[in-house]
Amino acid sequence: MTETAKPLVAVIGAGGMGRGWATLAVSRGWRVTLFDPSANVFDDARAEVITRVRRLQQRGMVPAETVEAGLAAFSNGRSLLRTVTDADWVIETGPEDLGQRQRLLEQVEQVCRLAAIITSSSLRYHASALCARLRRPERLLCVNPWSPLEYMPVVEVIPGPLTAPECVAAVRFWLQRLDHHPIVLHAEVPGNVSGRVAAAVWRECIDLVLDGVISVRDLDRVVSNGPAVAWAAVGPHQRLVLAAGLRDLTVALGAQLGTYEGWWQALSQRTSLDREELYRLARALENAYPGEADAVREERDRRLAALIDLRKSPP
Amino acid sequence: MTETAKPLVAVIGAGGMGRGWATLAVSRGWRVTLFDPSANVFDDARAEVITRVRRLQQRGMVPAETVEAGLAAFSNGRSLLRTVTDADWVIETGPEDLGQRQRLLEQVEQVCRLAAIITSSSLRYHASALCARLRRPERLLCVNPWSPLEYMPVVEVIPGPLTAPECVAAVRFWLQRLDHHPIVLHAEVPGNVSGRVAAAVWRECIDLVLDGVISVRDLDRVVSNGPAVAWAAVGPHQRLVLAAGLRDLTVALGAQLGTYEGWWQALSQRTSLDREELYRLARALENAYPGEADAVREERDRRLAALIDLRKSPP
Repeated sequence: MTETAKPLVAVIGAGGMGRGWATLAVSRGWRVTLFDPSANVFDDARAEVITRVRRLQQRGMVPAETVEAGLAAFSNGRSLLRTVTDADWVIETGPEDLGQRQRLLEQVEQVCRLAAIITSSSLRYHASALCARLRRPERLLCVNPWSPLEYMPVVEVIPGPLTAPECVAAVRFWLQRLDHHPIVLHAEVPGNVSGRVAAAVWRECIDLVLDGVISVRDLDRVVSNGPAVAWAAVGPHQRLVLAAGLRDLTVALGAQLGTYEGWWQALSQRTSLDREELYRLARALENAYPGEADAVREERDRRLAALIDLRKSPP
Repeated sequence: MTETAKPLVAVIGAGGMGRGWATLAVSRGWRVTLFDPSANVFDDARAEVITRVRRLQQRGMVPAETVEAGLAAFSNGRSLLRTVTDADWVIETGPEDLGQRQRLLEQVEQVCRLAAIITSSSLRYHASALCARLRRPERLLCVNPWSPLEYMPVVEVIPGPLTAPECVAAVRFWLQRLDHHPIVLHAEVPGNVSGRVAAAVWRECIDLVLDGVISVRDLDRVVSNGPAVAWAAVGPHQRLVLAAGLRDLTVALGAQLGTYEGWWQALSQRTSLDREELYRLARALENAYPGEADAVREERDRRLAALIDLRKSPP
């Protein structure tokens, strides 16, 4: 591999995803240049990145001198050309429009180094579609983190059919240097793994609330204290292996199926939400959580930091 | 309410669910009588309950004197009559066969006190079906905990259409005395809340593994470190409210829908698993987790205890 241990990072797009990537790389002392076509968003993004990086430092997750180095080197790219021209790793976080992203990636390729690797954080489109206008599609792959990115260590890495293995290896290496866990998928499927799981769960949550089975707050309590805690302790498949104990797994899973097959038949088949349902859901959420966002976000980040720390500690 | 603070508990069935209920109530010093029609399983169940109760004590979750009182009063019912005759709370954990459970509940009702409350831990059947042979269906309701019950605080309480409100109130009170969080549902739906969420997620996990998108271990890593940790920090709907920030929720949810609706259309529609798929899945799980169950179970319980503790601490 030819990648450096601390690549020069170019982040394209200063929305939520771009700010997350910038926070993570800056907090590890990497040189990060951020660019957004809307000139006036950089200052806001910079302020948020600084706050989030400092919070990591306060929580003891990154050392002060590393943070200072990262913040000192964190800059406004001002133009696409200046942003990506020297970058080792270009992180594209553009809008979820296929044509726009394809053109943006084409522009990036025209001005970046031959050795640069480009990752897209698109949730909707995969490398096989995003690379349509590229001359070097082998340098592009998709990388899907969870938000807030600086606390959520798992990152799905999804190469396209044309992606070069050394680019996958380099991105894996960089993510590990950022204290994250890259998981490489073997195929491009809608939503990848996390998105499918989130979509499957949200669909049930929507129907349970709209059908009046449970209130918004109680639903969150059940999911958060039940399945989420159970799976945060051990993954869903390992949980089944534990439940089987000494029994043969085919027999044990077969017994579970007797229950699950009945539930599968009854699950939500929703593929859309109409205007009236969307409005009802939004009002229900608003009434359940009126104006507590700042305190809740702070408590969420505290829990995430502790959860991640807990998972790291040895058995 | 007329219920006592420490009800006399009768647990019917010494399988996994019965052992969990016995562990929880014994650990809080309650008088528990356990009965299983298979005479020879009691000794094994008793040994497991003692081990699990002692572990709670070692983790500092229950005081020693309470544990001693509970263990001293923990007894083998030997017959259904002797087990339930004085009980305030009869916990039925029979086999998942509707006819068998209906007859078992009928027998319980014939010998228990008029004031006794009967809860069923059936995952497949609701009170409206289970009460078919009862003269006092108003004393019956369903109570669905997560396993391992002594660590998982959330319990779904599902009254039937005939259940008396005072029985729901008494069971809620008792669960709270056991340091658990009862959540009362407003309707009987297949799988209730936890089961639906688990079924929706397992279905995706099965397809992702059988389709070769990801390995069993990597799948567990993604779900466990991604969505599970995120939802253990804040529930799925509250997470959306946080993501919306200052934007109007209808607008913010609408933007999410643009992505989610595409995923919903691509989600698994599986309602069964055929023999060949079951066999392949079982082999994949076996190969992923060969013979590590004891160490993993210990680590799981340590994590669960810490996770629950983390959620209890104030913001």
